[in-house]
Amino acid sequence: MAGAKCRLVLASASPRRKELLAQIGAEFDILPARGEEHISTVKPEQAVVELSRQKAEEVAGLLVSKKGITGKAVVLGADTIVAFQGEILGKPKSREDAARMLRMLSGNTHSVFTGVAAILLEHQEAVKTLSFFEETKVTMYPMTEGEIQGYVATGEPMDKAGAYGIQGKCAIYIEKIAGDYNNVVGLPVAALYQRLSKSGIEIL
Amino acid sequence: MAGAKCRLVLASASPRRKELLAQIGAEFDILPARGEEHISTVKPEQAVVELSRQKAEEVAGLLVSKKGITGKAVVLGADTIVAFQGEILGKPKSREDAARMLRMLSGNTHSVFTGVAAILLEHQEAVKTLSFFEETKVTMYPMTEGEIQGYVATGEPMDKAGAYGIQGKCAIYIEKIAGDYNNVVGLPVAALYQRLSKSGIEIL
Repeated sequence: MAGAKCRLVLASASPRRKELLAQIGAEFDILPARGEEHISTVKPEQAVVELSRQKAEEVAGLLVSKKGITGKAVVLGADTIVAFQGEILGKPKSREDAARMLRMLSGNTHSVFTGVAAILLEHQEAVKTLSFFEETKVTMYPMTEGEIQGYVATGEPMDKAGAYGIQGKCAIYIEKIAGDYNNVVGLPVAALYQRLSKSGIEIL
Repeated sequence: MAGAKCRLVLASASPRRKELLAQIGAEFDILPARGEEHISTVKPEQAVVELSRQKAEEVAGLLVSKKGITGKAVVLGADTIVAFQGEILGKPKSREDAARMLRMLSGNTHSVFTGVAAILLEHQEAVKTLSFFEETKVTMYPMTEGEIQGYVATGEPMDKAGAYGIQGKCAIYIEKIAGDYNNVVGLPVAALYQRLSKSGIEIL
C-alpha cells in the first residue's frame, strides 16, 4: 500500500512462473539461479522453503555484488515439489520414471508444495526476506496404463515435479484440488501479492 | 474406450472454453448458440443444466436439420454462473454492477456452477444426451475498495459471471478453491472427458 512500485527479479527459468507473473500484470526481469541446490531435510514443506531461499539468495547476492540494482527491488525464488505418502517427487529422470510417478498418483490425493522467498533489496543491500510455502491437495482420477503411456508420450511430464502439468494435457485427469491452483502450476501469486502488500511492498 | 474419435462441436463463443479444449488437445469446431435462454428455476445447479442443454439442443437441432454432420459428433453446450448466499450472479450489467458483485464476494466463499450438455449425433440424429454440473467453491481474500475499482478498471470483469476471471488478473485475490479449477474458468474438461470416456465416446 505504501511506497513506489518495486522492480521484480524472478530467480527462475520456469516458463510457468513467468506466465503467472505476466498473467497478473507484473513487470519483471528474469535472472535464473544456477547454483547447486542443497536440502537438509526430507520434509517437503521445509525442502521447498530451503530451495527457494537458496535461489533467491544466489541471485540477490549477485545483484548486490555487481551493484546491479538502483532503487528498490524484490528478488523472487520459488521451488515446487510433489509429495505422496512420504515420498518427494521431483522432475522425472526418464519416461519410465515419469510413468512410475503417474501410477503412484493415479486415483489418489497428493500434496503439492511451493516454497517462495522474496528478498527485498534497497540501497544495494538485502534489507528483508519474506519466506513461506503453500500446500495444495490434488486428487487425480484413476488413469489406465494406456492413458499413462499416452500422456508420457506427449513429453509434457519430463520437466515437471511429479511428472504432470495441471495446466496442460493432464487437466483431464485432475478430479479436484483443495487450495491454490497456481501453487500447483508453480507460483502462488495470490499469497505472494497478499504478503508483499502487507509488508508495504508493491509489485503491481 | 471404444469406437473412433468423435467430431466435437462447441456450442459456445466463450474464448475460455475454446482455450480449455485446445489445452487438452481436442480438435473441434465452434458453432455458438444464439437463441434466447430460458430458466425455470432459481436453483443455480438446475439453471446451468437447463441453459447448457438449451445451447446444445439449439446447435444439435441446426446440424440435424441442415444435415451438417456425417458420422459421429458430440455437440457441447456449457453455462457457468456464480452463486453467493442465494443470489445468482451472471455477467455484470455495468462497471458499478461489477463492483457490487466484487464487494459481495470479497473475503467470502462462493460457489461456481458449470452445467454441461453433450449431445451425441449419429446418422443425422441425436442418439444420446449426457448432462451434468460441477460445483467448485472459491474463497477470495478481502479486497480493498481501491483494489476493486482498480480491477474493474481493467475491464476484465465485464464479460464474466460473478465479475471476475480466475485465470486473469483476479488470480491475486483467490485464496483457495475446493473442486475443479477449470470448472471456474468455464468448462470442467476433466469431468467431461471422464464421463464421455465411460460412455464410449472418444473426443481425444
